Amino acid sequence: MSGVKEVSSWLLAGIGRVIQSIEDSEIEKMIDILIDHIDHKILLIGSGRSGLVGRTFALRLMHLGFTVYVSGETITPALTEDDLVVALSGSGTTTTVVAQAEVAKSVGSTVIAVTSHPDSPLAANAHEVIEVKGRSKIDQIFDYDKRQITGEYSNAPLGTMFELSCMIFLDSIIAELMQRIGASELDLRKRHANAE
Amino acid sequence: MSGVKEVSSWLLAGIGRVIQSIEDSEIEKMIDILIDHIDHKILLIGSGRSGLVGRTFALRLMHLGFTVYVSGETITPALTEDDLVVALSGSGTTTTVVAQAEVAKSVGSTVIAVTSHPDSPLAANAHEVIEVKGRSKIDQIFDYDKRQITGEYSNAPLGTMFELSCMIFLDSIIAELMQRIGASELDLRKRHANAE
Amino acid sequence: MSGVKEVSSWLLAGIGRVIQSIEDSEIEKMIDILIDHIDHKILLIGSGRSGLVGRTFALRLMHLGFTVYVSGETITPALTEDDLVVALSGSGTTTTVVAQAEVAKSVGSTVIAVTSHPDSPLAANAHEVIEVKGRSKIDQIFDYDKRQITGEYSNAPLGTMFELSCMIFLDSIIAELMQRIGASELDLRKRHANAE
Amino acid sequence: MSGVKEVSSWLLAGIGRVIQSIEDSEIEKMIDILIDHIDHKILLIGSGRSGLVGRTFALRLMHLGFTVYVSGETITPALTEDDLVVALSGSGTTTTVVAQAEVAKSVGSTVIAVTSHPDSPLAANAHEVIEVKGRSKIDQIFDYDKRQITGEYSNAPLGTMFELSCMIFLDSIIAELMQRIGASELDLRKRHANAE
Repeated sequence: MSGVKEVSSWLLAGIGRVIQSIEDSEIEKMIDILIDHIDHKILLIGSGRSGLVGRTFALRLMHLGFTVYVSGETITPALTEDDLVVALSGSGTTTTVVAQAEVAKSVGSTVIAVTSHPDSPLAANAHEVIEVKGRSKIDQIFDYDKRQITGEYSNAPLGTMFELSCMIFLDSIIAELMQRIGASELDLRKRHANAE
Repeated sequence: MSGVKEVSSWLLAGIGRVIQSIEDSEIEKMIDILIDHIDHKILLIGSGRSGLVGRTFALRLMHLGFTVYVSGETITPALTEDDLVVALSGSGTTTTVVAQAEVAKSVGSTVIAVTSHPDSPLAANAHEVIEVKGRSKIDQIFDYDKRQITGEYSNAPLGTMFELSCMIFLDSIIAELMQRIGASELDLRKRHANAE
Repeated sequence: MSGVKEVSSWLLAGIGRVIQSIEDSEIEKMIDILIDHIDHKILLIGSGRSGLVGRTFALRLMHLGFTVYVSGETITPALTEDDLVVALSGSGTTTTVVAQAEVAKSVGSTVIAVTSHPDSPLAANAHEVIEVKGRSKIDQIFDYDKRQITGEYSNAPLGTMFELSCMIFLDSIIAELMQRIGASELDLRKRHANAE
Repeated sequence: MSGVKEVSSWLLAGIGRVIQSIEDSEIEKMIDILIDHIDHKILLIGSGRSGLVGRTFALRLMHLGFTVYVSGETITPALTEDDLVVALSGSGTTTTVVAQAEVAKSVGSTVIAVTSHPDSPLAANAHEVIEVKGRSKIDQIFDYDKRQITGEYSNAPLGTMFELSCMIFLDSIIAELMQRIGASELDLRKRHANAE
């Protein structure tokens, strides 16, 4: 078997463990908050690969009929107290993400933080924290040598495990939202971009 | 157990099957082509969620020391016969992706297509095709009713299975490239954006 | 006086001539079409610097209360016959722009083309063509030597004159729309992003 | 004459005045710093329309042979003391722009700030400040009523005058750089994206 496939299996097993460790009650709260904002604006915030994972989630929320925006893109509206921000950062310390979450909180928007660090500055600005363990950039600063010894993380450098776990987790949230909202795949398809 | 976690397990099992079905020889060729282009330009092409997955791969290639560009972003250079294009499209028919692959091929660039459809227009413009089965937008046009009956795909609407499989597969390629190139996580970290 | 300031003066004079040469009736039609779509979706299409100019216009339309999307960004919706596409391309031949305009036309959306070439493939797919003379990439293919001799274009390489003229012209359209709609600057400010 | 054309003339005259008021010595320093970084990385930072104007500048710098990145896009590298940051913000207070300029300065990168406010937090983190008067978002907070009375700014809402002035000014810098570097339009054309 290709070494690439072995790594895939290792990654999938790791992602499985990360997702199983998320608190069921946190998941329920996140879904409730999302459904509560179906008639308001949702802004996705994230940087680098976490930001890209956030965008894949944003696209599916849009296909589900939510009004979604992505930070850093051309069209980002003024936030109000009716709106929701979903911020992704493994470390919970990414400068621009924390700065935007602070502004969002200050104008009264609801903030959901998806992070490996529930004690981070990002989490401190969130109304709801989803802890996705994975591993984030910040770990290696304090804990790099130990991991070098185990060699465990050469298969999942930097924030890989956090990012992949978020990707699968958020797509699972989408499946659950489809059920709750009663949306079929055909409903999503109708909202899929046609001029691309 | 939360329904969200059940969906995650189902998705992870499906992704595992998709990746195991990729031809080992195709994987080897893709890695060889990537390493051959370490001193040249690599352009990632993709639309929607496939494009976002392509960007997560682009970021890691950059961390590995490759010179990478992403179609649709501000800085995209002139391609030459020395350069490599990696194009992602489940259906292999996305208009802009096919159009760009055609131009790339016409100027002599090498084109790798990652697609569920090895007989698609995109694949026809590629020197190397990686078949990632998943399911793509195009399937539902011909085969929608059957899937409604089984209900199997309400957990993975539209191109979800293709996109997630690509994400995990391409991160596994990164792990393999790290070994081949002899890059440590610390090497990647040095190239990670600091002003974000 | 700094040489940079001399170039600025030369550019401003050129832009002035280009904008004065636009047909008044075309401008009127464009404004009417925009106002007709205030309750529908508007998609901006363009590549490279033209695409960036299109985005500055998209942002102001959003500030005016229009529902605007930008091609190539995360959130781009399905177009319908109620919607409007504004496509910018000096040459009128940019592959992806023409491809998207074709799709938009085929689903019944209204298409406004802003181009230097009213006989281009882009214009052929448009219901309304705004001719912004400037100069575009395509010119130099046929007419490069002559310009080298005059040296006139070293101050405005490639599509510079088209792009700058569009930028000023489209901001002037915004000012006119503010009057027609009765929107004050304060109205725009309320819709300006706050979490940036 | 169309009202749109009248606004254009008014805008062009205003832009001319703004650019003429830029200090010649500041322009010279900016050009010297840019040329000093032709073999290093340049990162463009800006939000909203200022960020888009920064991207048009980034594209032309790339066409001139510079190695350029744009903040917020997929590929943004680690900055070092050899690198240059060009930050655009009319108000000089945009949260993410200031935060990134701070990081850039802290790692020893050179920072050029283009702003209407030489006493702003952004300017405080810059080695070289280009004052482009225009008017920025911040002004209206303190000075909104007066301008309502004169009505002068309904033609150039929010940061319009700053953004347009930057656009023309930076393209004039490009023309000057072409002369200094000895680059012809043909040199630029060779680096223009072909697969777009």
